[in-house]
Amino acid sequence: MARGQFYVFSLVLGTLGSLCLLFVIYWVQHWRGGLAWDNSSLLFNWHPVLMVAGMVVVYGAASLVYRLPQSWVGPKLPWKLLHAALHLAAFMLAVLGLVAVFSFHQHKKIAHLYSLHSWLGIAAVTLFAGQWLLGFSVFLLPWASQGLRSLLKPAHVFFGATILTLSMASVLSGINEKLFFSLKNTTAPYSSLPPEACFANFTGMLVAVFVVLVLYVLLVSSWKRPEPGLLADRQPLLQEAQ
Amino acid sequence: MARGQFYVFSLVLGTLGSLCLLFVIYWVQHWRGGLAWDNSSLLFNWHPVLMVAGMVVVYGAASLVYRLPQSWVGPKLPWKLLHAALHLAAFMLAVLGLVAVFSFHQHKKIAHLYSLHSWLGIAAVTLFAGQWLLGFSVFLLPWASQGLRSLLKPAHVFFGATILTLSMASVLSGINEKLFFSLKNTTAPYSSLPPEACFANFTGMLVAVFVVLVLYVLLVSSWKRPEPGLLADRQPLLQEAQ
Repeated sequence: MARGQFYVFSLVLGTLGSLCLLFVIYWVQHWRGGLAWDNSSLLFNWHPVLMVAGMVVVYGAASLVYRLPQSWVGPKLPWKLLHAALHLAAFMLAVLGLVAVFSFHQHKKIAHLYSLHSWLGIAAVTLFAGQWLLGFSVFLLPWASQGLRSLLKPAHVFFGATILTLSMASVLSGINEKLFFSLKNTTAPYSSLPPEACFANFTGMLVAVFVVLVLYVLLVSSWKRPEPGLLADRQPLLQEAQ
Repeated sequence: MARGQFYVFSLVLGTLGSLCLLFVIYWVQHWRGGLAWDNSSLLFNWHPVLMVAGMVVVYGAASLVYRLPQSWVGPKLPWKLLHAALHLAAFMLAVLGLVAVFSFHQHKKIAHLYSLHSWLGIAAVTLFAGQWLLGFSVFLLPWASQGLRSLLKPAHVFFGATILTLSMASVLSGINEKLFFSLKNTTAPYSSLPPEACFANFTGMLVAVFVVLVLYVLLVSSWKRPEPGLLADRQPLLQEAQ
């Protein structure tokens, strides 16, 4: 596909990702009392904001580093460092998001890790930690042979996509359960679809659209750095695009 | 990849898909009073069973028809008919699953389509209807040119994968919310992780694993019917595998 199309797609993805994050922040600011890092109920609100920021938006951006046409030529190391650094940032945001919800539970004497939402989320973050460490060991440290790297790369890409898919399911089930928790015993229960419910449902659908588009660029599109062996075949295409 | 590996993978997928369905049936039979198609609370129980059967298990099987090595040689039409028929069966199961939950809501005077779970589910089923009709019109009816079919095929495959991903998110958020509904005001709330909660959470994780493996075979693996133009290139591989 031509570079022009890629840039339009990047613009759409960047806008969608930013909107996902802004919408979650707006949700907790406008309807849930805002954000605070003390042991009040507001501590919880950091959880959705940080998880969507880390496991969806920054994770999605980090996954697509090698899809940038600029990364297709020249030395690969700077792009590898950017890929690893962005994923590390995503992971740290996710860990902070977990700290927020665990501290909140601790303070409110709520049990940890009982819901399917929490199982999905913990599975996603644990797989992410393993994926980052394995990726760092094999693709950044100098010991692994080119053969081992080529062998593990498809698995690395697929596991990356799997983690994003699990994160999406976790975010969506989380928004769903939070609305059931918050909008009960009120004058406007979830089932009456008050503005907050509409807004948060819409935010969830936006997260789903963003993730699906990231997966499209990652797994299906032809925007890829040419493999070393294929460089000769792809060269004319690259020149044409420049 | 060799055929042997594919058959091992098929066996794993078949077992996992069957377990997903059996576990959902066991859940509603053992803990939720069983299945009945009258206007009692038991009518609801058909909803998770039929949705997992239709949108996950049969849908997953139907998606992988062209990944069977038997489908790679000889006339394609019988495999197309099987692909379309299995997807139609999946769609009919899903529609019955929706009838079950809408009738249950009607009877219990519960609002329809307010939760993010329901928005996701309706989006998945609506996209599925569109995908089936478009697929039938372009790939089964004889009017479309080979060029148009080749152009639309990647989009068809990707939309198919998207629908399965949305179905997964919908099933997981549905199990999560059902457990919050059912296990409150009881001696063993969801947060105390009674056996039902463990079992249903585990079933949800199994659905996630099944969907991820189906997506792997569909999007990433090299088990594919050779394109007409590529037949010459692939022939040695096919012969080697036979």
